[in-house]
Amino acid sequence: MNSMWTQALGELVGTFILVLLGDGVVAGVSLNKSKAQGAGWIAITMGWGLAVTLGVYSAAFMGPAHLNPAVTLAFAAIGRFPWAWVAPFIIAQLIGGFLGGVVVWLQYYPHWAATDDPATTLGVFATGPAIRSYFANFISEFIGTAVLIFGLLAFSRGKWTDGLNPIGVGILITSIGLSLGGTTGYAINPARDLGPRLAHAFLPIANKGDSDWAYSWVPIVGPFLGGIAGALLFVLLP
Amino acid sequence: MNSMWTQALGELVGTFILVLLGDGVVAGVSLNKSKAQGAGWIAITMGWGLAVTLGVYSAAFMGPAHLNPAVTLAFAAIGRFPWAWVAPFIIAQLIGGFLGGVVVWLQYYPHWAATDDPATTLGVFATGPAIRSYFANFISEFIGTAVLIFGLLAFSRGKWTDGLNPIGVGILITSIGLSLGGTTGYAINPARDLGPRLAHAFLPIANKGDSDWAYSWVPIVGPFLGGIAGALLFVLLP
Amino acid sequence: MNSMWTQALGELVGTFILVLLGDGVVAGVSLNKSKAQGAGWIAITMGWGLAVTLGVYSAAFMGPAHLNPAVTLAFAAIGRFPWAWVAPFIIAQLIGGFLGGVVVWLQYYPHWAATDDPATTLGVFATGPAIRSYFANFISEFIGTAVLIFGLLAFSRGKWTDGLNPIGVGILITSIGLSLGGTTGYAINPARDLGPRLAHAFLPIANKGDSDWAYSWVPIVGPFLGGIAGALLFVLLP
Amino acid sequence: MNSMWTQALGELVGTFILVLLGDGVVAGVSLNKSKAQGAGWIAITMGWGLAVTLGVYSAAFMGPAHLNPAVTLAFAAIGRFPWAWVAPFIIAQLIGGFLGGVVVWLQYYPHWAATDDPATTLGVFATGPAIRSYFANFISEFIGTAVLIFGLLAFSRGKWTDGLNPIGVGILITSIGLSLGGTTGYAINPARDLGPRLAHAFLPIANKGDSDWAYSWVPIVGPFLGGIAGALLFVLLP
Repeated sequence: MNSMWTQALGELVGTFILVLLGDGVVAGVSLNKSKAQGAGWIAITMGWGLAVTLGVYSAAFMGPAHLNPAVTLAFAAIGRFPWAWVAPFIIAQLIGGFLGGVVVWLQYYPHWAATDDPATTLGVFATGPAIRSYFANFISEFIGTAVLIFGLLAFSRGKWTDGLNPIGVGILITSIGLSLGGTTGYAINPARDLGPRLAHAFLPIANKGDSDWAYSWVPIVGPFLGGIAGALLFVLLP
Repeated sequence: MNSMWTQALGELVGTFILVLLGDGVVAGVSLNKSKAQGAGWIAITMGWGLAVTLGVYSAAFMGPAHLNPAVTLAFAAIGRFPWAWVAPFIIAQLIGGFLGGVVVWLQYYPHWAATDDPATTLGVFATGPAIRSYFANFISEFIGTAVLIFGLLAFSRGKWTDGLNPIGVGILITSIGLSLGGTTGYAINPARDLGPRLAHAFLPIANKGDSDWAYSWVPIVGPFLGGIAGALLFVLLP
Repeated sequence: MNSMWTQALGELVGTFILVLLGDGVVAGVSLNKSKAQGAGWIAITMGWGLAVTLGVYSAAFMGPAHLNPAVTLAFAAIGRFPWAWVAPFIIAQLIGGFLGGVVVWLQYYPHWAATDDPATTLGVFATGPAIRSYFANFISEFIGTAVLIFGLLAFSRGKWTDGLNPIGVGILITSIGLSLGGTTGYAINPARDLGPRLAHAFLPIANKGDSDWAYSWVPIVGPFLGGIAGALLFVLLP
Repeated sequence: MNSMWTQALGELVGTFILVLLGDGVVAGVSLNKSKAQGAGWIAITMGWGLAVTLGVYSAAFMGPAHLNPAVTLAFAAIGRFPWAWVAPFIIAQLIGGFLGGVVVWLQYYPHWAATDDPATTLGVFATGPAIRSYFANFISEFIGTAVLIFGLLAFSRGKWTDGLNPIGVGILITSIGLSLGGTTGYAINPARDLGPRLAHAFLPIANKGDSDWAYSWVPIVGPFLGGIAGALLFVLLP
């Protein structure tokens, strides 16, 4: 087994790829003049599913490919991951998510100036609610992440880097996006939201507005608590 | 082999996930202000296929993952499932379907008040005909379910929880939806229709109308009889 | 190995399922009042791919699952299939295709009267050219079928009923549809076109027009010759 | 192991299939009167993914199925491919790409005269930028190809012709298209762009305009340098 540092590097690289490709599909579908503009929700949910599959493959030769602080915390909570490794893993995931946001900015560089709606630009980097209602939005993220962790455990018994299982992870993400994502944009992963939201705040993106920090706790607390709930439900079942 | 109670619990959990994700995609595509609104028939048929795949994975570690009273009855009819277990399985599936409907209501909580068409709201929980004609609608559900049971037996010989087979089940559901679903919305599963229809009737959903009980026998009787026909066709072939 | 009669019965059943689900998706997408109406070319190409996957699974426990006279003839031409079995196989495929057309008519029964454009109705059962030009249309069917047979041999070495290979066949069909199908609707299979075209001619379908027999040779001769060309190309390569 | 000549023939055949099906989907989606017209970015990205999967299968029985000069060069740069074979492989890939463009022209023959926008016609054969800005466009192709080569190495350890891995390659291509392709149309392969661009220049295509040679270096230099960067990143990781 690789050292903690190698495994945490895997988290960084995998989350970088996950956010680069995941935020990338939102950029492609929503930025002005992009060839993918208007490709819609199917493109976004397929694109995010594939992004997570490739993120898992990009981390799998180094570590367990959590790529998500809610996964790391939930696995620690049910005794399948050492508590001492939780903080390094989460920091690595956040750095990866931040860097993914930076490279999305470079990839679509001429398109930010062509896009004059700051909400569209923020939507590339961070999730936001369809109807702002913090408690309902929190419930949505809670349920979505509970299904994610329960599903990961049910289909792979926690070994989602084996064989074709990374494709199964992508299928799970696409399903959650299609079925539960219409309310908040399914962060279901604090690093996927906070990492690139920080990139949005720091980068000199053309035409950008504020980073909506008032909402930012929802895609952190909802996934953390929902993930623990989904993991507990699985271990309680016979 | 697990006890009947564990297997029936698997039916409850799997059907819960199936209906949560299946009705969830209809909610996402049709409720007002949802980010997925207007994503269309591809989203619905893909979403339902993935919902069934994840439902099967969610039940597979406990039991055979029928998740559908028409499957349970058809397997009993061809001697592959004990008659004494039929009623407990179907009750578990109905409870799972009901609970799936309840959680869809919670997941999309602010969107019901934003949706003012009661038929759209009912359509999240229960199927309805494109052209109301009970005999033709019954034939559609009969044919769709016959293809479902024949297909399940043909591709997996009845073992659809093994390996990647749950993905094959989802492919079968998506195919039936795309090819045979345009007429009645392809219930092809009494628990998927009756369970959340009951949830629709009991829950205090904003702006809801009646639950169209006049139609509700079609997605029960059609799947039961069609399922038996599909199973008999398979066992009669050499 | 099963007897020729069992194998031919497999061709009948598999081609029946292939045409039921394949023509079914065209019906769903194009008939008036269908819930799938307007789902577009992605739905049609995905639906046809899945239809062929399920057709292969439905025949695979009985025989080699050609489901296509162009496949049968091409395999005979390169010495991989007995010439004496060619005629029974093709007759079984045509009967299956005819019956598939009949059941599509039943499945969508109320929708024919709701559809007043005879060309739309014919388009459910048989292919037709986007720009009528018999030689160019022939070339399109020739190239499409050459890619089909070459692809079948290249990816599976002729054993496309093994394991997950039926999914590979569906992927091949979807790819040909997306990339080469825009010109003639990619029959690439004489039984898929002639079988349900005969059903269209004989059935009392509401609002139907003529069956366009003037074009009907193109999706027969093009696939037969293209299929042989694709098979020869494969066997000539090192 | 096959001789270099057989392997190079595999490159020619595989790149031919890749460009035939890949440019084919662009033709289908964008040419006038095509049945696939308007199917959009999902069709293009799915179609290209499947095209590469089938290209890999079409080459896999002869050689390693690079099908891309950027892959060949990057593998030579990290010592996994003999430098002496680089030129023959690239020449074979370019010939295959050229021939793919020729057959797309034949496949859609009547549709060129029906299409009166020369930019649409060129877009079938070669990529072009959404916003013309050579340095930004170069960065886009660099990043896209770096993800391609890193992804190929990460998911398959360089053996993407084994088993179901060609499907994984297609998934990678679709993901890059959805997430990073909106800016330049993701050539990420010099043979995919230069081969059919030459076909566009030489063929007597109805209503064609110029072949935009001013841009043509971007989808050559970007992929070559990005591919080397992606390969180096992979070999530097533990």
